[in-house]
Amino acid sequence: MINKLTEKIRKTHAPICVGLDPMLSYVPKQVQETAFKEYGETLEGAAEAIWQFNKAIIDATYDLIPAVKPQIAMYEQFGIPGLVAFKKTVDYCKEKDLVVIGDIKRGDIGSTSSAYAVGHLGKVQVGTKEYAGFDEDFATVNPYLGSDGVNPFIDICKKEKKGLFILVKTSNPSSGEFQDQLINGRPLYELVGEKVAQWGADCMGDEYSYIGAVVGATYPEMGKVLRKIMPKSYILVPGYGAQGGKGKDLVHFFNEDGLGAVVNSSRGIIAAYKQEQYAEFGEANFADASRKAVETMVADIDGALTALK
Amino acid sequence: MINKLTEKIRKTHAPICVGLDPMLSYVPKQVQETAFKEYGETLEGAAEAIWQFNKAIIDATYDLIPAVKPQIAMYEQFGIPGLVAFKKTVDYCKEKDLVVIGDIKRGDIGSTSSAYAVGHLGKVQVGTKEYAGFDEDFATVNPYLGSDGVNPFIDICKKEKKGLFILVKTSNPSSGEFQDQLINGRPLYELVGEKVAQWGADCMGDEYSYIGAVVGATYPEMGKVLRKIMPKSYILVPGYGAQGGKGKDLVHFFNEDGLGAVVNSSRGIIAAYKQEQYAEFGEANFADASRKAVETMVADIDGALTALK
Repeated sequence: MINKLTEKIRKTHAPICVGLDPMLSYVPKQVQETAFKEYGETLEGAAEAIWQFNKAIIDATYDLIPAVKPQIAMYEQFGIPGLVAFKKTVDYCKEKDLVVIGDIKRGDIGSTSSAYAVGHLGKVQVGTKEYAGFDEDFATVNPYLGSDGVNPFIDICKKEKKGLFILVKTSNPSSGEFQDQLINGRPLYELVGEKVAQWGADCMGDEYSYIGAVVGATYPEMGKVLRKIMPKSYILVPGYGAQGGKGKDLVHFFNEDGLGAVVNSSRGIIAAYKQEQYAEFGEANFADASRKAVETMVADIDGALTALK
Repeated sequence: MINKLTEKIRKTHAPICVGLDPMLSYVPKQVQETAFKEYGETLEGAAEAIWQFNKAIIDATYDLIPAVKPQIAMYEQFGIPGLVAFKKTVDYCKEKDLVVIGDIKRGDIGSTSSAYAVGHLGKVQVGTKEYAGFDEDFATVNPYLGSDGVNPFIDICKKEKKGLFILVKTSNPSSGEFQDQLINGRPLYELVGEKVAQWGADCMGDEYSYIGAVVGATYPEMGKVLRKIMPKSYILVPGYGAQGGKGKDLVHFFNEDGLGAVVNSSRGIIAAYKQEQYAEFGEANFADASRKAVETMVADIDGALTALK
């Protein structure tokens, strides 16, 4: 799957993913109303609204991008119907040949981590049969529990040719509370980054490892250091746009081959129609605004990378 | 909810919770066959099997215990049908007036953490209506992302009178890889413990804070230190029995009032019928074996606490 991601990034010149994190407040009133008309103001109605919203955005952008990153929390908040919409979204993106990064930030130990890995990346045994529960291509994983938490995910990735992005340095303001604490003079996130490199060494695709890392766009200096610590790992970079990052700040997340990072934008793409610069599209054409926002983002990042050459 | 937990622990003399973490391999063949007969060897069949298994164990133990801790991973591995079984389990336990600790180990930032908190502990707004997605009483939370990740959960707990158990020192062998790293001479888990105490200070029930911590039974010495760092926080203690902990090793997780900790056992209770000491019950009477295992566990822990007095 890491080879597919690399190949699609080369083809699209778009080292980005679209964060499908639909707050109900992002969904245009008309889409909500149509859904509520059919299902009422229910969890099913909300799930239908976000699914239709996602579908329109996927249809408008899939040819421009290699990958999407649905954030499962935004679906889980609507209970079972929300998770049904998550699954529909994952399945639809795969139909469109997009690489699907499940932003699930799971992490537990032993058989429990195995269960998450099986549910999201693998297949579960039921009697003589096997089934995939959610079937994303990559998943994000929280490393706080150590190797016991990560290895069960890696085992499933090896078997299924899938991949992980492990939280190293997150994009939020308070990420330093624990992640920046110095251990023998070096921050914890560097230690975690070294572990990612170790875990990844045994998990190589053609050029890159399928064990990657999450490093926030909001910390470009740390990204520069982590890039060197994990040379063969893809870095998933959240925090572009809405959280403050810009293309030129992100060049050091990439390797000299122009690869090795995938920059996520969620709100900046899916709620583009709410921004002044895309207001001309109007609420009804929200998906066209998203397409334009993707084009702008790709030009920003690809431009910054090209300027380096 | 923390007051209810304390009150129920006082009443039952059982500072324990039963971990409803049903691997399909724990479910007696006959229960599986009945479920597969109705639904086939499908995800729905697996979900029905674990739900019937849970229900029998709940019916056989609910009068002895204050709380249960369903581990969502074990349901999530069966996709949507598995999560439906999780919800049925939560709802049924609440009908039986049990305190439900959702072992979800979620953690993200800002609006994403809010979405998890809303989905598991709060209510989500849909148009003019509000709905609870999963509606547990407590949830476990991963602290790696710092206050930005935890505060949205705390906000919902304040509003809904619910609670959290934040991962501090987990029970697994490799938990030390990051959690034990020394920061100015003190391990990271102590730093996280101090944060739990801070977060909890503003969230007091009658006697205890509703912001608690997870500290593994397998690390009793660390539990002793953490008990003092977080005097007002309940400690959820996994790792009893199957993972190695015993009642006498756990007394220092409690305060002098005999409260402040809730010890979890999963396999040791729900798969008791597979152990030699409960073999007399036979597979068909698996729930009676679970009841006996609860009684044994309560006697072990309550006995160890009484011996201290």
